[in-house]
Amino acid sequence: MPYYIGDVIRQSEELVARTPEKFGESGITISLNTTVESVDYDKGLLKTAAGETIGYDHLVIATGTNAIRPDIPGIDRDGVFVLKNLTDGIAVKKWVEDNHCRRAVVVGAGFVAMELAEAFRTRDMDTTVVYRGTRPIKRWDKALTDIVTEELEKNGVIFVTGTSPRAVEESGDGLRLVTDNGDFDADVIVFGLGVKPETSIARDIGLEMGTSGAIKVNFSQRTSREEIFAVGDCAEAFHRIRREWVHIPLGDTANKQGRIVGCIIGGAPRVFQGVVGAQSFKFFGLEIAATGIDEAEAVACGYHPESHVTKGTFRTPSMQGRARMSIKLTADRATGRLLGAQAVSNIGAVGRINILSACLWSEMTLDQIGYLDFAYSPPFGGAWDIVHRAAQGLQRKL
Amino acid sequence: MPYYIGDVIRQSEELVARTPEKFGESGITISLNTTVESVDYDKGLLKTAAGETIGYDHLVIATGTNAIRPDIPGIDRDGVFVLKNLTDGIAVKKWVEDNHCRRAVVVGAGFVAMELAEAFRTRDMDTTVVYRGTRPIKRWDKALTDIVTEELEKNGVIFVTGTSPRAVEESGDGLRLVTDNGDFDADVIVFGLGVKPETSIARDIGLEMGTSGAIKVNFSQRTSREEIFAVGDCAEAFHRIRREWVHIPLGDTANKQGRIVGCIIGGAPRVFQGVVGAQSFKFFGLEIAATGIDEAEAVACGYHPESHVTKGTFRTPSMQGRARMSIKLTADRATGRLLGAQAVSNIGAVGRINILSACLWSEMTLDQIGYLDFAYSPPFGGAWDIVHRAAQGLQRKL
Repeated sequence: MPYYIGDVIRQSEELVARTPEKFGESGITISLNTTVESVDYDKGLLKTAAGETIGYDHLVIATGTNAIRPDIPGIDRDGVFVLKNLTDGIAVKKWVEDNHCRRAVVVGAGFVAMELAEAFRTRDMDTTVVYRGTRPIKRWDKALTDIVTEELEKNGVIFVTGTSPRAVEESGDGLRLVTDNGDFDADVIVFGLGVKPETSIARDIGLEMGTSGAIKVNFSQRTSREEIFAVGDCAEAFHRIRREWVHIPLGDTANKQGRIVGCIIGGAPRVFQGVVGAQSFKFFGLEIAATGIDEAEAVACGYHPESHVTKGTFRTPSMQGRARMSIKLTADRATGRLLGAQAVSNIGAVGRINILSACLWSEMTLDQIGYLDFAYSPPFGGAWDIVHRAAQGLQRKL
Repeated sequence: MPYYIGDVIRQSEELVARTPEKFGESGITISLNTTVESVDYDKGLLKTAAGETIGYDHLVIATGTNAIRPDIPGIDRDGVFVLKNLTDGIAVKKWVEDNHCRRAVVVGAGFVAMELAEAFRTRDMDTTVVYRGTRPIKRWDKALTDIVTEELEKNGVIFVTGTSPRAVEESGDGLRLVTDNGDFDADVIVFGLGVKPETSIARDIGLEMGTSGAIKVNFSQRTSREEIFAVGDCAEAFHRIRREWVHIPLGDTANKQGRIVGCIIGGAPRVFQGVVGAQSFKFFGLEIAATGIDEAEAVACGYHPESHVTKGTFRTPSMQGRARMSIKLTADRATGRLLGAQAVSNIGAVGRINILSACLWSEMTLDQIGYLDFAYSPPFGGAWDIVHRAAQGLQRKL
């Protein structure tokens, strides 16, 4: 009989309360707000903090990640947040509403930080993004992040670069973020500095960790103990382009790994065939997406990367006009294989990156991608799609 | 020095007239409204109808197709059209406007016929589609064409099935389509019955024809004479799923084949790697797209097809709401390989079919497609895309 335990589904409490029959019928026992204190893997027993003992044949660890919280004075003040899960999101929203916040400071410039900046601006709050680097979403090429920087400006987000936080202090009736580059007053401060895998239970058990710091698994999501699986953000996944195990915590990967383990425990053989690194986010009017690896990763793997940025306009699916898109491809000079792609557009970037993810999955070369057979029709695009043009443009440089 | 000749680019006349410098600079000689009378391939000479003689090292035949015009009495009456090229389209439009047409009859129910019906309805004309079969766009599964039939009804197009034309007669100040199932009065009648490759020059030369009736070519687009190439709608293309040479005349394929031949003549080795059968059209509020092969084609090839239709709703890229989509996948039971896909939706069908075309290109199996790594983000879709769900749904039936 399946048994779910722990912190990780605390967010589901309301869902379970609203639809108990759904969970009752399925024969699943759910223990929310329950912490695992220890695991006796020789006997196949869990002990909870409340002293309960639960036996298992298969144990699935899905403990996710924790948001990185910098170790600076004042980090625990009221009004200072990280954003990792739904609970965090609700807490930020409640604070903003209860305190009628007018000024927000976001620390970091990854995609969670960007989404936060949009959320605050959508509430008409003065929003400042403080970042130690120089460009937002630095994984993307400068030619593409310039478009993101424009979008930040266009939407009135103040973007402060080369600036690291030192402390959070009180200031009048609000807060002050003290940095190495001046102070920033705010009513709410959120740190969007990334995440670390939550592996404490796994380490207690003595499971092997990957070089990424996440739990090492094989293609069946089994850890170094056969009867213990790990899935989702706490576990590694095989990167099909890098050909190594990586930690890229994303919701769709977690869904897939969970399903694979469900099949295996249920008796159906399955393997999780890995990821290619596809990801996306929405930022005001932009679709921003990427897949595969960038030049630095390619060099580290021993590939010989060459890249090219293609700009184009194309008709939108709804024929409401023409959209701009910039797309960057990276390929290996030795083999002509696509290694990665990045795209920014008003509309269509995610769709193109999904096509290119399918191409990466099966190790397609630029001369194949440049002549792929798409479902062409004038209302939906040109006879040559921007994907074709990008592949041919890069191929000319190889 | 490149030399373009003939009927096939008559549509470009206006373009050339408007931008002569573009053509002059490139050193291209263009002879419009010129018919090739004979080809002396031993000497590498063309003779035109005007008596001019032109020598060649490489000859590229790009004579396209002709629309099928049924051999019935009255087919040549004014107001009766086929629709193959821009000239045809302009002629239909001029007739409709000059004669203030209020009633249109379209014969056929392929995608050109459907596009015609939409065009006439958009002008608020009474529009009747007369078709000998029972379902529009019969290549698509009934579950999907039912949606198209609904769209026909919703938009006030009268769809008459099981009906074949017998003659076109005069009727008052208009026309009358006489059929085996009653008569239909109209001010304009357009036949959308498909196309046949225009191969008369190729046959005169004695070039080998494919079993499809189009010009036989190899991966370099060379015909049975090495110095003569054929490209576009008059030529065959290799179908990567059927593994045979087919005649699927489409504009994007023509573009690609032309480019391949340009590279080869220019000294760069290239091969055209074939098609997977991707196609799409817009019909009122629907995106309709398909790729690969259907069950009948699969059986003919010796595959063991199994199919499944998945229905879903998904968020639109612009977040303007949720769209419905129906997607049908066909796979081979022996290997688990995807063989074909069809989709109909308000928005998103073409994008999904393009992804599946990339999957077909590289012979992916359902268990790969069901776990493909896409650029997931809540504004753009679910953690499981309808492509994942469709692949998993079909896999459960294999």
